[in-house]
Amino acid sequence: MTDKLNDADRDMMIAPLIENGWRMSSDRDAIEKTFTFDNFVEAFGFMSKAAIWAEKMGHHPEWSNVYKTVEVTLTTHDVDGLSELDAKLAAKMDDLA
Amino acid sequence: MTDKLNDADRDMMIAPLIENGWRMSSDRDAIEKTFTFDNFVEAFGFMSKAAIWAEKMGHHPEWSNVYKTVEVTLTTHDVDGLSELDAKLAAKMDDLA
Repeated sequence: MTDKLNDADRDMMIAPLIENGWRMSSDRDAIEKTFTFDNFVEAFGFMSKAAIWAEKMGHHPEWSNVYKTVEVTLTTHDVDGLSELDAKLAAKMDDLA
Repeated sequence: MTDKLNDADRDMMIAPLIENGWRMSSDRDAIEKTFTFDNFVEAFGFMSKAAIWAEKMGHHPEWSNVYKTVEVTLTTHDVDGLSELDAKLAAKMDDLA
């Protein structure tokens, strides 16, 4: 679960996320996405739902919020890069947004 | 309420915040503070309370969260700098933390 993703894993798990608006971070093995909502309440509502799921999964995002925009970065510090946990949390966030 | 703070205002409203752990941003007329909690639930709990107050005040923070740490920047875009709204939101966040 928390092994660093190999190339085959990346084709299977990360490629679909990239097609769905995620991008590879430029400076480390991580994925990023910018979520934009109608207003602050919608943006923070998304964060609240995602926060509960993150805590349930035991895997937490690095994220920032400016009014209606939420910037998310996912990586797994224990493996110094992307793991299956990042792919699962990314997919969950896409569901919630 | 949303005028840019003058020097007298800053002595009265911003100076006490600086003594309480806020700092001036290096690159613009804004204040910043790093809040650290015991864990993610406590950190996001703080954000949830602050989010509701921010929405009530009609004034929103720029903030980021990594696990148990919350970094907050406050400024007022309408005045291109600090206003009384920032001082009030900062004091409220200190109360909530």
